[in-house]
Order: sequence, then structure tokens, then C-alpha cells
Amino acid sequence: MSKSIPHEAHDILRDLPTGHVATVRPDGRLSVNPVALLFEDGLVRFSTTKDRAKYRNLLADPRVAICVPHRNNPNRYVELRGHVEIEDDTDRAFIDRVARHYINEDHYPFDHPQAERVTVTIVAEQVSMRAIPLSDNPPGAPDSARA
Amino acid sequence: MSKSIPHEAHDILRDLPTGHVATVRPDGRLSVNPVALLFEDGLVRFSTTKDRAKYRNLLADPRVAICVPHRNNPNRYVELRGHVEIEDDTDRAFIDRVARHYINEDHYPFDHPQAERVTVTIVAEQVSMRAIPLSDNPPGAPDSARA
Repeated sequence: MSKSIPHEAHDILRDLPTGHVATVRPDGRLSVNPVALLFEDGLVRFSTTKDRAKYRNLLADPRVAICVPHRNNPNRYVELRGHVEIEDDTDRAFIDRVARHYINEDHYPFDHPQAERVTVTIVAEQVSMRAIPLSDNPPGAPDSARA
Repeated sequence: MSKSIPHEAHDILRDLPTGHVATVRPDGRLSVNPVALLFEDGLVRFSTTKDRAKYRNLLADPRVAICVPHRNNPNRYVELRGHVEIEDDTDRAFIDRVARHYINEDHYPFDHPQAERVTVTIVAEQVSMRAIPLSDNPPGAPDSARA
């Protein structure tokens, strides 16, 4: 069971956010990478392919954290910490939903023909959100809170 | 010795970027949080306070990764993986440089009086950059490469 995500974060997740996903590499080093994501049925999910380091990292060590800032306000973000569940996206239903949401295309057009898609669902054990109710400024606006 | 950061990433780091820092918590969970950062003498540094989870995490486990996307183009980013070195910022020289760079103030004005600042330097063991030479679009522009 994933912890529920507070309503105040739903607009961040339903927009076109970039999430930053932390994983552990087989050599023990941490890694952080940007992902597009969907918020479906109360869960945060993203797509990756079996040839990416992210997939190999998560297969070997399912621990994950993701930080999703508001698209235009890095002071407002939601962070999920927990583990992942991974499913094959054999019929590409999930990646095509990502394509519709982010680039208004019925089919994600950028994979090479051999790409094997998987869908990663974040099982949140802990959820935290910035409490500071700053307005959603454009990037580059004075940023009072990140330091 | 920190690995050198390629010239193509310098504009990302010299702008007003938000870095996403991954750390390991004492309970073994991963965490990712946004930080303001400075790129000085070829090194990426950020400030935090001794009462933050980030500081406690890094003190117990110095492994770190940071992903720094271009402020207006999440497809272009630099990722550093390695460990940290932490120094007290007793005279607040570093946090005040952050304040000058990000909010054009001589002194960082948002700390509570007891805040003890430290400066975290990332010692990069590995550096990776997106190779895709996309233009620096505004956020929300069609995003071909994150999924």
C-alpha cells in the first residue's frame, strides 16, 4: 500500500512536472535523473526502458525517492520515499498515455524499435511536502527558501 | 579530487539552477531535495543548516548525487555522483554569496537566529550529461526525451 498523497500536491503532479528520481547503482553510488510522470489512481508512475541504468538499478535495489517540484515554482514540491514495483508495458499502453499527456501524441515517437518499456510505480512509504505557501513564481524569481 | 565538469554544463551551473540532491537516510531510505547551488573553482557547492535532515544524512553517509537541469529545459542536465565534504560556514561567507547570486541580497535573510550554516562541496567521482542537443525550451514545451 502506498501512502496517500495530500491534495495540496495533486496540482503539481497533474501538471507536466519533471520528477527527479533517486536510485542506488550496483557500485553503491547514488544517482538522480529527471523523468516525466503520471499521477493515476493516487499513484505516481513513470516509464523507462530495460536498457537504462535506472531500470537496472531499481531491479537490483527497489529503494527510490522522487522529488517533484511545481513546474514554475521550485519552492513548492512533494517528495515520496519508498520502493518501486515494476511491470512490463508490453502493449505500450502506459508510455502512450505519457505521450498523450506530455506531447499530445497518441504514440510515443522517440523509442528505437527494440526498446522494451516498463512502468515503474512508486510505493510511497513516506510523503513530505514543503509547507511554505509561496506563490507559484516563474523560474528565476527571487527564491527565498531553497538555501 | 573532484572530476572536472565539462564546459557544456557550465552555463547550467552558473545560471540560477535548482539542483536535486539525493542522500541516504539513517533508516536506509533515499531522499531527494531541491537546493540552490554555486559553481565555484570548478566545484558544485550548496548550503544547508545543521538542523536539516540533509545534513544529518550526509554526516552519517557522505554518498551523494545531484541532478542539475537547465533552468528552462529539463532535457538538458548534468548529474554528479560521488560524495561530499562538509565545512562549517561560521562567518556565513558562503550563504551570503548564495544570497547575492540568487536574490541579490548581501545577507541571506531567511534563517532563524540559531541557524548554523554548513557548506557542502560535491566531490564528483562520476559526471554525466545528456548528450541530446535540444534547444532550451520554456517549461511545458513538448518534451521529447524524458520518458
